[in-house]
Amino acid sequence: MHIRRTQRHHVWDNAIAPVATLAPGEEATVETADAGGGQFSPASTSADVPALDFTRINPVTGPFLVEGAEPGDALVVDLLDVAVGDWGWTACIPGFGLLADDFPDPRLRISKIASTADLLGLAVPVVPMVGTIGVAPPEPGEHSVVPPRRWGGNLDVRHIGPGARLVLPVGVPGALLSLGDAHAAMGDGEVCGTGVETEAAVRLRVDVRKGAAPRTPVIETDPRAQRTGAALATTGIGPDLHRAARDATRYLVDEISARTGLDPVDAYLLASVAADLKVSQVVDVPNWTVTAHLELSLIS
Amino acid sequence: MHIRRTQRHHVWDNAIAPVATLAPGEEATVETADAGGGQFSPASTSADVPALDFTRINPVTGPFLVEGAEPGDALVVDLLDVAVGDWGWTACIPGFGLLADDFPDPRLRISKIASTADLLGLAVPVVPMVGTIGVAPPEPGEHSVVPPRRWGGNLDVRHIGPGARLVLPVGVPGALLSLGDAHAAMGDGEVCGTGVETEAAVRLRVDVRKGAAPRTPVIETDPRAQRTGAALATTGIGPDLHRAARDATRYLVDEISARTGLDPVDAYLLASVAADLKVSQVVDVPNWTVTAHLELSLIS
Repeated sequence: MHIRRTQRHHVWDNAIAPVATLAPGEEATVETADAGGGQFSPASTSADVPALDFTRINPVTGPFLVEGAEPGDALVVDLLDVAVGDWGWTACIPGFGLLADDFPDPRLRISKIASTADLLGLAVPVVPMVGTIGVAPPEPGEHSVVPPRRWGGNLDVRHIGPGARLVLPVGVPGALLSLGDAHAAMGDGEVCGTGVETEAAVRLRVDVRKGAAPRTPVIETDPRAQRTGAALATTGIGPDLHRAARDATRYLVDEISARTGLDPVDAYLLASVAADLKVSQVVDVPNWTVTAHLELSLIS
Repeated sequence: MHIRRTQRHHVWDNAIAPVATLAPGEEATVETADAGGGQFSPASTSADVPALDFTRINPVTGPFLVEGAEPGDALVVDLLDVAVGDWGWTACIPGFGLLADDFPDPRLRISKIASTADLLGLAVPVVPMVGTIGVAPPEPGEHSVVPPRRWGGNLDVRHIGPGARLVLPVGVPGALLSLGDAHAAMGDGEVCGTGVETEAAVRLRVDVRKGAAPRTPVIETDPRAQRTGAALATTGIGPDLHRAARDATRYLVDEISARTGLDPVDAYLLASVAADLKVSQVVDVPNWTVTAHLELSLIS
C-alpha cells in the first residue's frame, strides 16, 4: 500500500473519513507533506515567513482505519523506514518557540539534505523522525493539530524514527491513525519550534494489542537516534523548570554564536535542530538543573 | 596532592578556610564522602532512613584556594578520573524526590559496585560522576548545600564525570572550590533524589581564564557518559513541564514494575539511577512533551 501526501487533513476530528484500511501486520508506505504544507520552496527566504498561512500548517496524511482496533486497545506502530526529502527548512516564526521574546524577527534557512543537512554551512547529522503521529481523539469535533495529547499527535519526540516502535492508546473504533511533520534532524526540545522540516515517505506496520491501551504514548527507541559524541552543555538553574530550560537554551545560543560567529538567531535555529535539552535533576530543592547539549564536532 | 575526605564542610560559606592551595595546571586527588556523610553502611536497611541526620548530608571536600582566581574569572576544572567505591546506596527519603507524594515510605537499597552496580539484582552500568562541585558564593554567610546555584554546587549533572571539563564562574578571590556527592550511576532527573551514592577519589586539574566567567556552569562532556542502547520511553504531555516530567516518570515506573515484577518503589529507585528525563519539545503550544528513557537491556 502506498498513500500519497495529498490525502491529508489539518485538524484532528474523528468524523474525517479514512483514506485506507490497514490490517494488523500489513505494511504501508505513507508519504507526508512538510510541516509548512508546501508553503516554502528551496528559493524561499526570511521575507516569506510572515505570509505563512497557519490554517495550512502541520498537515497529516490519513486517517488510516486499523482493522480490529477498538477503544481501550493499544495500537502498535513499527516505523520501518523514514526516507526524508532532499531539502528542508528551519524557521524562527515570530511569537512561536521557547525564546520567542528574544527573537521577534522572522528567519528562514534552507538546508540541502543528503547524508547530512547542510544548515548554515554546518554538517548537521541526519536523524530522520516523524514529528506528528497519532490517532483520532474520542471527543467529537475539530481539535488543533498543534499540541500533542494523550492520543499522540504532534509529540515531536525525536526518537520516533526508523527502527522505533510507538504504542498509542486507541480512542475510537478503527483507531484512525494519521502522521506527518517529518524532520531530517531535530534536537530534544525543538527550541525554535522547527527542525529541518521536510517531506518524507514513511514505511510502517501496525498491530493491535487488545485492551492494552497505555495512558500516554510509549516508545521503544532505536540506537540510531542516540547522540554519542562529546558535547558542549550549558546549564539553566532555578525553581522553575520552564525558565531553567529557557536559560540553558539562551546560554547555549550565546556559546554557539561566540564560537562560530553565527548570528544569534541562526545559532538558535542550529540549537533547535541539533541540541538536546535534558532535565539533569529535578530534586535538589528549590533549584532544578536543565542542560542544553550540542555535539562539539558540529561547531569545532 | 592528595586530600582526604575528612577535610569536609556542610554548607557553602566563603569564610571557610581553605584546606589547600592549587596552582593552575596542578593535579590533585580529592577524596569525597558519600552524600549521606557515612551515615549508611552496606548493612543498612530501609529502617535506617528515618534516622538520617540532614545536617550531615551532602558533605563536600575542600575548599581549595586556586592561585590567581579572581571574581569575574572562569575556573576550569578537568575531571581526569572519578574512582568510585565498592558499594553504594540508593534511597527513597520521605518528602524528597520528584514523586514524593506517590512514595511516602522510606526505602534503602545497597548496591555492590564493580564494572556494574548490582542494584536489585540488575546490572546497572557504572557511569561515575560528581554530583556536587562548585565555588564559594560571594554573598556572605552560610548557604545550604542542597540546591545548586550560579556558582555550581549540587548541580547533579550526570555528565560531570571522567573526561569532562567544567567551567565555573569565580565569585571570590581564590575561587574556593569544593566537591562531593559522587554517584556510580544516575539518570538525568535523579528522580527519587539519589543515585548510586558512594565515596570516590576524584583526580582533577584546574586552570583559570581571566575575565571569562560564564553566567552559569558550562560543561564539555565526554562520550563515556552517553547512553547508546535502545530504550523504553514513556511520555508526559501537558502545559506544565514539571507535571509532564512527573507523569513521564510515573508511567516509566509502572512499565518497569510491570515488566520486571519489581515493587513500584524499587522501580522508582531504578529509574533514578538509570533513566533519563528529556525535554522532547517545549514549543507545541499549549502542551509540552517530556520523555523518560530507560535502556531496554536493563529490564529485558
